[in-house]
Amino acid sequence: MPTTIPALARDLQPALQHKLDRKTKPMGSLGRLEALALQLGLIQQRLDPQIVQPTMLVFAGDHGLARAGVSPFPPEVTPQMVLNFLSGGAAVNVLCRANGLDFKVVNAGVNYKFAPHPLLIDVPLAHGTASSLDGPAMTREQAELALQRGADIVAGLAAQGCTVLALGEMGIGNTSAASLLMAQLTDVPLADCTGRGTGHDDDGLARKLAVLQQVQARHASLSAPLDILAAVGGFEIAMMAGAYLAGAASGMLLLVDGFIATAALLVASRINPAVLDYCAYAHCSGEQGHRRLLAELSGEPLLDLGLRLGEGSGAATAFPLLRAAAAILNEMASFESAGVSDKDG
Amino acid sequence: MPTTIPALARDLQPALQHKLDRKTKPMGSLGRLEALALQLGLIQQRLDPQIVQPTMLVFAGDHGLARAGVSPFPPEVTPQMVLNFLSGGAAVNVLCRANGLDFKVVNAGVNYKFAPHPLLIDVPLAHGTASSLDGPAMTREQAELALQRGADIVAGLAAQGCTVLALGEMGIGNTSAASLLMAQLTDVPLADCTGRGTGHDDDGLARKLAVLQQVQARHASLSAPLDILAAVGGFEIAMMAGAYLAGAASGMLLLVDGFIATAALLVASRINPAVLDYCAYAHCSGEQGHRRLLAELSGEPLLDLGLRLGEGSGAATAFPLLRAAAAILNEMASFESAGVSDKDG
Repeated sequence: MPTTIPALARDLQPALQHKLDRKTKPMGSLGRLEALALQLGLIQQRLDPQIVQPTMLVFAGDHGLARAGVSPFPPEVTPQMVLNFLSGGAAVNVLCRANGLDFKVVNAGVNYKFAPHPLLIDVPLAHGTASSLDGPAMTREQAELALQRGADIVAGLAAQGCTVLALGEMGIGNTSAASLLMAQLTDVPLADCTGRGTGHDDDGLARKLAVLQQVQARHASLSAPLDILAAVGGFEIAMMAGAYLAGAASGMLLLVDGFIATAALLVASRINPAVLDYCAYAHCSGEQGHRRLLAELSGEPLLDLGLRLGEGSGAATAFPLLRAAAAILNEMASFESAGVSDKDG
Repeated sequence: MPTTIPALARDLQPALQHKLDRKTKPMGSLGRLEALALQLGLIQQRLDPQIVQPTMLVFAGDHGLARAGVSPFPPEVTPQMVLNFLSGGAAVNVLCRANGLDFKVVNAGVNYKFAPHPLLIDVPLAHGTASSLDGPAMTREQAELALQRGADIVAGLAAQGCTVLALGEMGIGNTSAASLLMAQLTDVPLADCTGRGTGHDDDGLARKLAVLQQVQARHASLSAPLDILAAVGGFEIAMMAGAYLAGAASGMLLLVDGFIATAALLVASRINPAVLDYCAYAHCSGEQGHRRLLAELSGEPLLDLGLRLGEGSGAATAFPLLRAAAAILNEMASFESAGVSDKDG
């Protein structure tokens, strides 16, 4: 596992800030786009950061816990949606095409045998996790292997030159895994970490929470992040955690999606907190718990549009903001180059 | 002037909603993107609305009031920035290129003689307004002519097939005009309508407000929207109001930018409130008064990124959300077409 992530060097910050401040606009008037531009420059350690081969990886996995009725959708939707991703018809496909992101699906552990497909990275660890109601969702060895496989995929992208990585996920039952991870890795009560997922009504939410409370009680003694990940996580979540760590180690900007993607980042940050310097937070999801989880990571979301789909849809939606930020830094004229008088000029 | 704007027909709403609800996602889970898709479908009266020749028009004008020190930037920045727009180096140029918007500048009344340029629509009404401290900024005839010229430009775009219109502006002193319009066309106190513009410090803001209070007192007896527009508006703002009205009359979606662009829409809405059905609000600007002005129009901003530059920069930044919304409606698979099981399936 890549545990060496360079702390973000700040040496270039004054030069980047100066470049932004001389652009033909009142100082700071492009708000958070300027902050994004600065972060991108610091991550790439250059005054003209480039967005090269921006890529969305959607990790899919099945969850043993889904059989306990924690989702209103049946578990077979996980492979069905993977097939939908491969044929290009899901929201994340459409949004990636609209916004110019490369797209790949990773089978991290879906209960289905997929035919080879150019968009599929087929590296499952199993046909789904065990139910965390009955024991750990995966073994400690599986958790470590999942982290490594996620990291390896991203190392391959880094070798191709990719500088921006967005991660999405699909897995019926995975808001439950994310809620459990959040509750065990932070001080937030489980009820505040648990939401309606793909669309529970009040009764469904109450049933879901009751199941999660049983799971939490069963694994309450654990404290090491990897043990907690193994006990209540998912294969897709574990691979995403490894992918974040490898992305940061490779100097990529990481565009963080919704509740589950942020829970995977929480796991990664408990393994190596330096990963957080490389993250931009695409949006605050409508899923209960996400706003609080973002606050735990001091993450400020770019968008707040009530999205609660997952798949990476929020990250794909926010990606043009990153492109805009880079373009401001690289393409805007300065007061000097444009012959425009400065303030109080 | 186009005063005939069809009230938005809602007949197609159930069919559009059904189409959105059968997409492979939990119902409503794409949040405000779904609402945008619905609005675009209703405006175009079709289940597969198209984004054709999306266009940013930036209207520029000089303000007599700028000589009273209401801006920290000197008035010559207006023509300098127009030249910057024409050479492609301003923020709005960069953002339009990044996001695929056509771009034109309209000289509505700048104190400069421009050479012909393919990006310039050179139809000034004068070399700037008179100072509203001394009398009306323009005559009632000029105001009407400006509305008509703005409308004519947009009618030309409609004839070319443009379906999405974004308006931006440039004019040193025009946050002052916008604040005065807001204060006289709503019940909001002038102090709450007045902000730091391009970057006043506390003293500068106090001086600006003192000047605006004098202007307001001078024109306090007016109540007709066109009289108020003539008294305290600007040529660029008046043309924008006409452009909004013509855009709505042509069935365009209008992407509304920041404080000044919204003040121009306020004027348009006092002429014909039906224009508001055609508007999407790109962002809430950092300029004091914008949030309140949006609330006056019941406008919910898509972005809240602390932008306060004007030029149409917020609208250009938000435009990919509209493209995403259309793509969801037009390109996503349905549960049926993708063979995905629905909720509780």
